[in-house]
Amino acid sequence: MGRRQQGRTAALAATIEDRVTDSFNRQGLMLHLGADIDEVSPGFVRIRLPFAETLTQQHGYFHAGATSAIADSAGGYAGLTVFPEGSSVLTVEFKVNLVAPARGDWLEAEGKVVRSGRTLTICQLEVYGVAAGLRTLVALGQQTLIAIAPRDQRETPE
Amino acid sequence: MGRRQQGRTAALAATIEDRVTDSFNRQGLMLHLGADIDEVSPGFVRIRLPFAETLTQQHGYFHAGATSAIADSAGGYAGLTVFPEGSSVLTVEFKVNLVAPARGDWLEAEGKVVRSGRTLTICQLEVYGVAAGLRTLVALGQQTLIAIAPRDQRETPE
Amino acid sequence: MGRRQQGRTAALAATIEDRVTDSFNRQGLMLHLGADIDEVSPGFVRIRLPFAETLTQQHGYFHAGATSAIADSAGGYAGLTVFPEGSSVLTVEFKVNLVAPARGDWLEAEGKVVRSGRTLTICQLEVYGVAAGLRTLVALGQQTLIAIAPRDQRETPE
Amino acid sequence: MGRRQQGRTAALAATIEDRVTDSFNRQGLMLHLGADIDEVSPGFVRIRLPFAETLTQQHGYFHAGATSAIADSAGGYAGLTVFPEGSSVLTVEFKVNLVAPARGDWLEAEGKVVRSGRTLTICQLEVYGVAAGLRTLVALGQQTLIAIAPRDQRETPE
Repeated sequence: MGRRQQGRTAALAATIEDRVTDSFNRQGLMLHLGADIDEVSPGFVRIRLPFAETLTQQHGYFHAGATSAIADSAGGYAGLTVFPEGSSVLTVEFKVNLVAPARGDWLEAEGKVVRSGRTLTICQLEVYGVAAGLRTLVALGQQTLIAIAPRDQRETPE
Repeated sequence: MGRRQQGRTAALAATIEDRVTDSFNRQGLMLHLGADIDEVSPGFVRIRLPFAETLTQQHGYFHAGATSAIADSAGGYAGLTVFPEGSSVLTVEFKVNLVAPARGDWLEAEGKVVRSGRTLTICQLEVYGVAAGLRTLVALGQQTLIAIAPRDQRETPE
Repeated sequence: MGRRQQGRTAALAATIEDRVTDSFNRQGLMLHLGADIDEVSPGFVRIRLPFAETLTQQHGYFHAGATSAIADSAGGYAGLTVFPEGSSVLTVEFKVNLVAPARGDWLEAEGKVVRSGRTLTICQLEVYGVAAGLRTLVALGQQTLIAIAPRDQRETPE
Repeated sequence: MGRRQQGRTAALAATIEDRVTDSFNRQGLMLHLGADIDEVSPGFVRIRLPFAETLTQQHGYFHAGATSAIADSAGGYAGLTVFPEGSSVLTVEFKVNLVAPARGDWLEAEGKVVRSGRTLTICQLEVYGVAAGLRTLVALGQQTLIAIAPRDQRETPE
């Protein structure tokens, strides 16, 4: 709890990018998959995921679970950039269409805030496969986030 | 290609469970996450994922990406159990609501075929967190799968 | 405003079924489509929609928009049955798979609460076509609702 | 059957706009709601729906079912513009977020093809409320369509 308190205080003082990076670095899954934050701006986050055999489905492409994981994180952090300082973010739900085989040297997931309200925020999610300098759309999604106000951090989100 | 051909021939002769297990074992991501097939029956698959620090989001719970990855795989393999032999399966899209913090000693993702057509199959997805013998629903989803006929295996799915 | 105030006061005193029926009767669209409340119980609502030429798509079946409209209302009212008295309900989002041609003498849309939290409630939606006493699943959905507390009724929901 | 055959032959000879309008005019629901085709171009369709008491939910705004109905039709017809002549279109599934109260003098639903494959086509859906010359986003969706080839018209789509 002390550590969370410290983390929160630091986050309050930090820039948007620091807030996103700070939280991202505490996501064991993103580290385990090998993902990195590529860009952070207000209402927008891009995450990169280099190809590895550890990320594949049965045909050797990126698994839909890997594609979805970075799409969800990109959207969640895009939301976090527009929330009041000290807030945290939870995904309420998301939907993703896998529109082409997810292959390439790496994937790029982009989360973009479309509308941000007092409680709920809606993001569009796009994932591209990049190979030989060519970006191909491989997944398209839509996500609902909920902002957890500082005073509610210890409560169950809903 | 030779290895895939052998795999396919073997799969044609095998039981439903062997077909699912065979494909599952070629999913690098499922191995990397630490997931296992727990049960296979016609139109139903359950996948287990023990907790690990490598699967977490920023609050220490299972990341929505991990939850979604096993939900997607459970649904996809539930679909595969009802497809003609030699077919393979691709996820067209899925939607998942994250209804409670995904915590527990392990997660159990269940995919269940609701309707299977010539081309498209619809599954319901449920993910439970299990701790101290108690199962709590943490995610609920719905998924559209497409069956790829043996003759179309080398083509782009759509 | 006076009329709404009266309606609200009456609703507070009424049973669950009255609350649902009262709100349903103020939905101009449900009347215009010809839909009726068929059953109300805690966490569950069923709406019936008899076939009419005014409800069709280009092949003469029920239009997906009609199917979705009653599915959305059934889920929303299922949610309302579990909300605190005086609350109102808004749909945050829903997703629906149209799994078979929507035909029959009437459609039956069933909304069922799967999980209800302080702010958000998740419903499953099923729509059946009924002909010659046979019920066929034609649509399957999932919905996120938000409860608007009495004190927030005049504010924008999100 | 003779009439359908004639309709099909005529459609084969017609422009994209005629094909869309021809099908739209056979949608009893769109007529009943009072909706009109506003614009058709390759991969894009806009539908307008003027406000009426017959379209409302319990607070007097457009009902989510009306919003969704025109969003679904706009997406479906956007898909039809890119399908081979003689094909017809069915909605596999769609998901819609209702991001603001749907009010205004009319709604405008826009369907835009994002990716079109041999079997499946993905559309983005946007619905705006228009009042006093101001367009406000009220709904955002994503849709999966299936193209039914001329030879399969009489079969069940999936």
